[in-house]
Amino acid sequence: MDSRPIGVFDSGIGGLTVVKEIMEQLPNESIVYFGDTARVPYGTKSKETVTKYSFQCINFLLEKKVKAIVVACNTASAASLDAIKQSYDIPIVGVVEPGAIAACEVTKLNKIGIIGTEGTVSSGAYEKEINIINNDVKMVLKACPLFVPIVEEGWQDTEIAKLTAKEYLEGLKGNGIDALVMACTHYPLLEQTIGEIMGEDIQLVNPAFETAKALKTVLHELNIHSKSSKSSSYEFYVSDNPVKFKKVGENFLKKPISHVQKIDIEKY
Amino acid sequence: MDSRPIGVFDSGIGGLTVVKEIMEQLPNESIVYFGDTARVPYGTKSKETVTKYSFQCINFLLEKKVKAIVVACNTASAASLDAIKQSYDIPIVGVVEPGAIAACEVTKLNKIGIIGTEGTVSSGAYEKEINIINNDVKMVLKACPLFVPIVEEGWQDTEIAKLTAKEYLEGLKGNGIDALVMACTHYPLLEQTIGEIMGEDIQLVNPAFETAKALKTVLHELNIHSKSSKSSSYEFYVSDNPVKFKKVGENFLKKPISHVQKIDIEKY
Repeated sequence: MDSRPIGVFDSGIGGLTVVKEIMEQLPNESIVYFGDTARVPYGTKSKETVTKYSFQCINFLLEKKVKAIVVACNTASAASLDAIKQSYDIPIVGVVEPGAIAACEVTKLNKIGIIGTEGTVSSGAYEKEINIINNDVKMVLKACPLFVPIVEEGWQDTEIAKLTAKEYLEGLKGNGIDALVMACTHYPLLEQTIGEIMGEDIQLVNPAFETAKALKTVLHELNIHSKSSKSSSYEFYVSDNPVKFKKVGENFLKKPISHVQKIDIEKY
Repeated sequence: MDSRPIGVFDSGIGGLTVVKEIMEQLPNESIVYFGDTARVPYGTKSKETVTKYSFQCINFLLEKKVKAIVVACNTASAASLDAIKQSYDIPIVGVVEPGAIAACEVTKLNKIGIIGTEGTVSSGAYEKEINIINNDVKMVLKACPLFVPIVEEGWQDTEIAKLTAKEYLEGLKGNGIDALVMACTHYPLLEQTIGEIMGEDIQLVNPAFETAKALKTVLHELNIHSKSSKSSSYEFYVSDNPVKFKKVGENFLKKPISHVQKIDIEKY
């Protein structure tokens, strides 16, 4: 039994979809979240820069006495997970590997679609990870740049979201895929719309869900999960614009965020 | 008579709307364009960082022997124009002041709408500039985050663009404004859609058009305009992703871009 919190970081607000899954799958765990909103997006930055930022995020979370760390950012997971795992003793779970494993389990036709930001799609992170697991799997990638601002506006249930999803996804459908990885932290908020367009024969993979599942396994394996029945606490920190984070974040979590604190991440 | 080119820089691709206006209003002038696509967007970065980037962009353009410089980026104009004007002898035209002057000339009700990115809207740059010109003018600001990715996808004439513009702009219409500044370099590509929603009583102000007009005035005042009747040349440089720049850029210019060269801006 270990009641110390889980540390979660992301380049911004998107990592809250991972927080939501942790809250649901691990209700006894407390969480400290850091969103690097001053330096978002990571996707356009070099591997060296993203790795430096990841170290700073982890150093901040360690100060908060976390027992495990979740890298809820696709770019940071792809760019820096190897380097940070080598540098820290604490368990660290990224978001790419659990999504890749689940996609490989789901596909029967060995053909997987992957949607994400331009940065994630062009990074080749999912292709690399999936081909480590199964070299026979073919992939079709598609960047969907409008999905992030649609979610940040809270427009996921509008006609605009439906038309945009149709525009991006109808071409993918004809490619013989039977699994689709929502490889951007924002996209699970569009799950229903995406699912309606893809149809029942294409199974959606949510890396946020898979990451929380992987974290649960790790905590139990190491016997550091919390068994406390008293209510868990949630703390939120950002490097810029706490007001926007609170407003948009509540749409992600589907619950109120009581307080968001701004910190200077460059100190770490 | 001075046949040296005009230097234009922007944080990315948006400054091409200013290039398009210069091509139309000053067909004898040659242009060297630099888009800082590796470090886009500037809107989320500190004033110090943006000023440093602006100096680097100008140093690169000076190496290309330009005779005047246009800062086609709203953020860079707002953050660094004073500092760079003090540091260089060459004429420098920003994009905020010409738009602000035109808006103040157009409004009869002394009430102006301003639409832009979240960065431009929260910077207060247009409010400051407009109130220097006329302290009685009231302003209504609205950030329209989906407009940039819609234009970059080339979707400006779709139902998605129309529904999005309606969502953002219908609230503005009821505010008693009679002028609307399209205070983001991407927005002039949505001019028709925006105009249809705002109606005939609200006049649209295009800072790209006004900036080219201001540049024309400056070149003639200083007698450094080109009188050459032989065809002008256009050169395009970026700090990342020349392929995307070429593809999206042709949608901005409505003409082919023959060649885009990638350079290392951090050397400057």
